[in-house]
Amino acid sequence: MESDHYIVKTGAKRSGPDASPVECRGGSLCRLPGLDAVDRGFLTRAIELGREGWGRVHPNPMVGAVVARGGVTLAEAPHAEFGGPHAEAAALAALGGRARGATLYSSLEPCAHSGKTPPCAEAIRGAGIARVVYWAAEPGAEEGGGGEWLRRRGVHVVGPCGERADWAAENPAFFHAAAGERPYVALKLAVSMDGCIAPGGGRRAWLTGPEARSEVHRLRAGFDAILVGTRTWKADDPMLTARGAVTPRVPPVPVLLDRRGEADASLRALRSGGGAGAIVATAPGVGGRVEARLGGRGEVVGVPVAGFGLDLAALMAALAARGVGSVFCEGGGILAASLLAGGLVDRVYLFVAPLVVGGGGVAAFPPAPGERPEDVRARFEGWQTRLDPVRFGNDTLIVMDRGG
Amino acid sequence: MESDHYIVKTGAKRSGPDASPVECRGGSLCRLPGLDAVDRGFLTRAIELGREGWGRVHPNPMVGAVVARGGVTLAEAPHAEFGGPHAEAAALAALGGRARGATLYSSLEPCAHSGKTPPCAEAIRGAGIARVVYWAAEPGAEEGGGGEWLRRRGVHVVGPCGERADWAAENPAFFHAAAGERPYVALKLAVSMDGCIAPGGGRRAWLTGPEARSEVHRLRAGFDAILVGTRTWKADDPMLTARGAVTPRVPPVPVLLDRRGEADASLRALRSGGGAGAIVATAPGVGGRVEARLGGRGEVVGVPVAGFGLDLAALMAALAARGVGSVFCEGGGILAASLLAGGLVDRVYLFVAPLVVGGGGVAAFPPAPGERPEDVRARFEGWQTRLDPVRFGNDTLIVMDRGG
Repeated sequence: MESDHYIVKTGAKRSGPDASPVECRGGSLCRLPGLDAVDRGFLTRAIELGREGWGRVHPNPMVGAVVARGGVTLAEAPHAEFGGPHAEAAALAALGGRARGATLYSSLEPCAHSGKTPPCAEAIRGAGIARVVYWAAEPGAEEGGGGEWLRRRGVHVVGPCGERADWAAENPAFFHAAAGERPYVALKLAVSMDGCIAPGGGRRAWLTGPEARSEVHRLRAGFDAILVGTRTWKADDPMLTARGAVTPRVPPVPVLLDRRGEADASLRALRSGGGAGAIVATAPGVGGRVEARLGGRGEVVGVPVAGFGLDLAALMAALAARGVGSVFCEGGGILAASLLAGGLVDRVYLFVAPLVVGGGGVAAFPPAPGERPEDVRARFEGWQTRLDPVRFGNDTLIVMDRGG
Repeated sequence: MESDHYIVKTGAKRSGPDASPVECRGGSLCRLPGLDAVDRGFLTRAIELGREGWGRVHPNPMVGAVVARGGVTLAEAPHAEFGGPHAEAAALAALGGRARGATLYSSLEPCAHSGKTPPCAEAIRGAGIARVVYWAAEPGAEEGGGGEWLRRRGVHVVGPCGERADWAAENPAFFHAAAGERPYVALKLAVSMDGCIAPGGGRRAWLTGPEARSEVHRLRAGFDAILVGTRTWKADDPMLTARGAVTPRVPPVPVLLDRRGEADASLRALRSGGGAGAIVATAPGVGGRVEARLGGRGEVVGVPVAGFGLDLAALMAALAARGVGSVFCEGGGILAASLLAGGLVDRVYLFVAPLVVGGGGVAAFPPAPGERPEDVRARFEGWQTRLDPVRFGNDTLIVMDRGG
């Protein structure tokens, strides 16, 4: 079986132009019990379409929908923009009245509630859809969601399918928000094969190539905030904007750690596009002088000191209180280690560059300040790799999610 | 563009059951200039089919062929078994006489020479194929290969397409052999995210999960020999057989490094299926006593000592002289470092496990004995990641090829 798995995922057994077009890719769709190949194929397509909403729909989930009859697509659509039509409604609208008797596939349970748009369940029933196949259950709608609503009205409903962990891997911040508390936190690390994020001796060098760096900009667009530690903004003065293939609907808020109160208005993260909303997190005693120095650029947030630095859990609570639902942390190494040690990281985007730093490099996974080396070992117990890796030029992106 | 790249490779923009079935996956087919979507789709399928020959056709190349007309597949076949029909001939044979006017796609230039089977070029012409699209040029056939032979006889021939480095990434040992000298050498390493191959302190633990370990067995099946260092066979007493999803046509030959002459006939690698052909490489002075101890199980090969161990380049020459065209090296760390330091590695199969060993682990890329740490840094300059990464359970396989 491993062989099949491998072959599928390197592309073998993919269909030619007219061969059977649907096969298991060894990813989450392998974990879709009870669906035949046609349903799996259309549901895959719906999930893929949903991804087009990256950076544009959050805090809504990314959702895609396909309407098909007799193995032929009649219409398809993503949820393209926050506040715009849901995927199901968009696909049906494109069809006019020609959806009667068709099957609708959606990557999320159709909504049964009126929000910014009318409920999709009603639109589906109104269009005469005979059968609905959906992937993820709407969080909080275990009873009385759109699936149940449609079932009661005689529509043949198949769903939810697969595993919650896969739904969450696809729409992590959305499912995290449904579970509550602090923002969803993703950590980006670019490492060499010997586990370093930089050569030693203070030398600065890109480990990854331009394709991977461009992907980082695309990833930024899907988060509410971008967090960096003191050393990073001091050394790099980054803009912390999303200058990639996706223009974010709402630019992510730069968040700078600044325990000692050293930030000033000249920092690019405060002057760039997102600057109006930037947040500078300081120890309580020094916030006032930073505020004076910023001259209205950005908000100063006092955060208690804990152990060797700012209390990162308290910072996350402060960000949540300001409406930040997801945080993309780009370093540096000490911040990353502290977040990991504090159990505050939900996902790691690990870019692996095909090179070796050799002796004296800066370790990607050092102990956090005050932590023993052996504590580091337990850090990723229970973590899972559910998304498939992606190559960017010579570099490889591995996405790991905290288990449970 | 990076966004598209990403989306394609995570699966988005893959076709649903009836959408346009062919799209660039961001892999080697992105590097197929001058072909339209239909040709790319069928040629992709031919390349994929070829992979079914892994472990069964070498030292022949893996080749797949598709015969199509009007966008519809008429027949397809891989080269399934060494000595059996070539892919093109197999696909045509399945069609009887119904290939007239069709297009034949092949992942390798059709042969124009009689070997174990009649030339494919003649079979193609005889079947009335109107057009041939092929990917890789047959090495050594730059003039007068099957492509040219068919062109001269009025067949419309498109090929070779793409880049030699991609052809070689797909059939590395085959293209390496065409360039000559020592065997093709692939190094397998399983590493933690902090670049270790094992916890320290002599503890032994699998870093990777069962899916990855099963893939290692599948990989073994495609090599002529499996090489391990002294510490590895002493510590693990491995069988070094290919017990995965592919049963190798010819079991790989276990090769044990044994500079001091400590091997004996009780070793599993000498007693298992491949034992008759095992090779024990010793320093010149100690071969006799090992030979006496082996009692006919395996061949003892004397290899000069160079620096801190056996002369690995000399070992490779000795293996080549015995018909070994490809070597899969599974460790340990010192052997891997020595092979890398000697410039003897053509490919690295890097399995990345989503865990951190923490302090005191065994580094995957240490300096070789006698080497300075800074020498390690230059080791992968010019290396390329041309194949897409593959997930095996929680682990990720990254395949890196030496450039040039």
